[in-house]
Amino acid sequence: MKPNDGIERTPIAQAPSPLEQPSDSDKIDRRAFLTRGAGMVAATVTAWPAPAAAAAADAPAAVPPWMQTPGKPMSNYGQPSAFEKPVARIVGAPYGAIAPGSGAARTPIHALEGTITPSGLHFERHHNGVPEIDPAAHRLLIHGLVKKPLMFTVQALLRYPMTSRICFIECAGNSNANTNLKAPQVPAGAIHGMVSCSEWTGVPLAVLLDEAGVDPRADWLLAEGADAAAMSRSVPLAKAFDDAMIALYQNGERLRPEQGYPVRLLLPGWEGNMNVKWLRRVKLTEGPTHTKDETSKYSDPTPDGKARQFTFEMGVKSVITRPSIGMKMQGAGLYEISGLAWSGAGKIRRVDVSLDGGTSWREAVLQAPIFSKSVTRFRLPWEWNGARVQLQSRATDEKDNVQPSRASWLPDYMPQQRYHNNSIQTWAIEADGGVSNVYL
Amino acid sequence: MKPNDGIERTPIAQAPSPLEQPSDSDKIDRRAFLTRGAGMVAATVTAWPAPAAAAAADAPAAVPPWMQTPGKPMSNYGQPSAFEKPVARIVGAPYGAIAPGSGAARTPIHALEGTITPSGLHFERHHNGVPEIDPAAHRLLIHGLVKKPLMFTVQALLRYPMTSRICFIECAGNSNANTNLKAPQVPAGAIHGMVSCSEWTGVPLAVLLDEAGVDPRADWLLAEGADAAAMSRSVPLAKAFDDAMIALYQNGERLRPEQGYPVRLLLPGWEGNMNVKWLRRVKLTEGPTHTKDETSKYSDPTPDGKARQFTFEMGVKSVITRPSIGMKMQGAGLYEISGLAWSGAGKIRRVDVSLDGGTSWREAVLQAPIFSKSVTRFRLPWEWNGARVQLQSRATDEKDNVQPSRASWLPDYMPQQRYHNNSIQTWAIEADGGVSNVYL
Repeated sequence: MKPNDGIERTPIAQAPSPLEQPSDSDKIDRRAFLTRGAGMVAATVTAWPAPAAAAAADAPAAVPPWMQTPGKPMSNYGQPSAFEKPVARIVGAPYGAIAPGSGAARTPIHALEGTITPSGLHFERHHNGVPEIDPAAHRLLIHGLVKKPLMFTVQALLRYPMTSRICFIECAGNSNANTNLKAPQVPAGAIHGMVSCSEWTGVPLAVLLDEAGVDPRADWLLAEGADAAAMSRSVPLAKAFDDAMIALYQNGERLRPEQGYPVRLLLPGWEGNMNVKWLRRVKLTEGPTHTKDETSKYSDPTPDGKARQFTFEMGVKSVITRPSIGMKMQGAGLYEISGLAWSGAGKIRRVDVSLDGGTSWREAVLQAPIFSKSVTRFRLPWEWNGARVQLQSRATDEKDNVQPSRASWLPDYMPQQRYHNNSIQTWAIEADGGVSNVYL
Repeated sequence: MKPNDGIERTPIAQAPSPLEQPSDSDKIDRRAFLTRGAGMVAATVTAWPAPAAAAAADAPAAVPPWMQTPGKPMSNYGQPSAFEKPVARIVGAPYGAIAPGSGAARTPIHALEGTITPSGLHFERHHNGVPEIDPAAHRLLIHGLVKKPLMFTVQALLRYPMTSRICFIECAGNSNANTNLKAPQVPAGAIHGMVSCSEWTGVPLAVLLDEAGVDPRADWLLAEGADAAAMSRSVPLAKAFDDAMIALYQNGERLRPEQGYPVRLLLPGWEGNMNVKWLRRVKLTEGPTHTKDETSKYSDPTPDGKARQFTFEMGVKSVITRPSIGMKMQGAGLYEISGLAWSGAGKIRRVDVSLDGGTSWREAVLQAPIFSKSVTRFRLPWEWNGARVQLQSRATDEKDNVQPSRASWLPDYMPQQRYHNNSIQTWAIEADGGVSNVYL
């Protein structure tokens, strides 16, 4: 523990934390425990119904109604509890009335824990909606600068040797709300929720390209989706032979429709839209194709009027999900700071947390296992003293890339440009327990 | 490659595999590729619609209907494709008419890939159905031989320091259908689908017990669920201080109702029912409580009329999920053998595959990462020559436990006893491509 790290601590013996609400029983108290070098205590002991001390010691609480009647039977496909209905994707307005499926729905990262995103809450970003594809009729074509063009049924792809990996997908436009002139006061998922993490399983693209035979002139490929936008991107061929996957399964089951059922391209660590969904063809080319999707979008305008073409890899980034905007602190006391960090360049090496807007930092604990190009959960025990704090997290990846501050990130991009904002998020916690989004 | 491993191989140049269906284009062919030391080739090239050679080389296939109309808009909570409706939990008959929620629904492991089980398909086993618990009204009581009994709200638990781990849960009764007198001819999931794997996140039970203060006389605990069966089990206290978790999240989101929403006990590697769902109290005791659930069930009868009490740890086990019973081989040619292996004792160290009913074996490839007490996916490329085979997998864990054959497992248990059947599964593949369940 650093004496000047901005975190004030209250010894429990002197001033019991409001977290430590005594129940009806004055026999119920608590003690401090040390976790990973940080003083930390917790627990609320409100009772249901409030038991007498003896009752708490000797018997369970009163029998709740759901123990007094048989429960529901088994079901074919489970769903979340009705009490969790507010935990849903945050559906944005469509980008145009004629294309109701053009837009995005974000993952409520502020309501989730761990690292896997349940498939039902994986973010969506579509350019003309979600096609309903009959897998028996879908084909994947590999052509262009190849020796032997090949056409695959889904059934054929399912017979190839497969591999699985856990990795994130992040939309290039994630966190773009934080380029607005005023800091948006919306949940963390509504700002940063275009990042999700799944276990993907499929066939290495290199296996299929090897079979087709790459013409030596080929150095790029064009990937095209079978949606009504025919969303298409150019990809350097080296990525195909690095870690690209023809993904067929997501979190154990076949891909969800919003994630490209029945076949998507997975390019770990690269812009979400390049992970082309509903993949129908891969054409090997000399140079990039300059598709509409990579010229009208996904080129980053710079202050001098030019544009970066292209920015494939997603930058090193992190966000604290708990506490975060919209949550109400339950008074001074002990909390766990919890968040996500990720980098398109590889593994997360460290995450630092600041409580004073970036003046001082302390290192968070990274939860194992840490995978390359996957989200990593970081945690830090914290006793809040009730005073205002400006909470930040700053990620560093194994290539020594460090997440930039907002002030240092802004000058490199045209004002309000909407892509690749990996700058540090600041949550202000006020003395009344309210949490807001502030620009620093 | 072993010369006498029972796998016959056909050089592609001599006898093209039926997998290699030529399309209308005679320019489309294929070549062998080597994967992990095993000769392997694949790909089907039926066309949709069958393109001429020139078309395949220069242009995509005809534009399918779903590219000609805008797709569906974004949604709050995604669901699988309608085409995947058959991939569902296999719901067994309730164990009694008066308790429609007493029974099991199994994971369709034969239709899944990777290692994570989507939460909607996690197996269910209930003793009196799924209670609908209001999390605001639920309490967790820690009492018995403790210094300070404690009662927790869910909200309080959510403020504790958390941890995540990926691990399996397997019902003690999994694979019990294979103790029937005749080998059941039902899908692999209907036999072995009471095993599932998730990322669980929650509070280490040890943290809460430390806070309550363990009375030195305590050496066991009683865990009780808030379902209408008040399902309860005795657990040695050492397990609580080893790796037990008060789980709050499953695969990123709050627990599903069938998995114990809002709080379950997680005892990695131990019998499923001990991972008490809807956990309402943990009572520290001297010795086991001998609850109805652990005396009327979950004690394993032995041939001498006695019973083993208790068998907590789930044995080392594996099953080939693809190909498996009910699937129809698409003719001789190349396939990937894919399956799951797991052990309650730790990590899987190796999996061997036999094609001749256990006479000869070859080692499969274990897919990384390999976690302790988690499922591990194994894979083996295989060229089927069209003759009858008896396919088996045999797992070995890091403690040198080896999965037993059915013949060696049977004598240790009373005939048709229904628990802890971790014996080797045999799938017979007939010359006509049919796959069946056989006892060896």
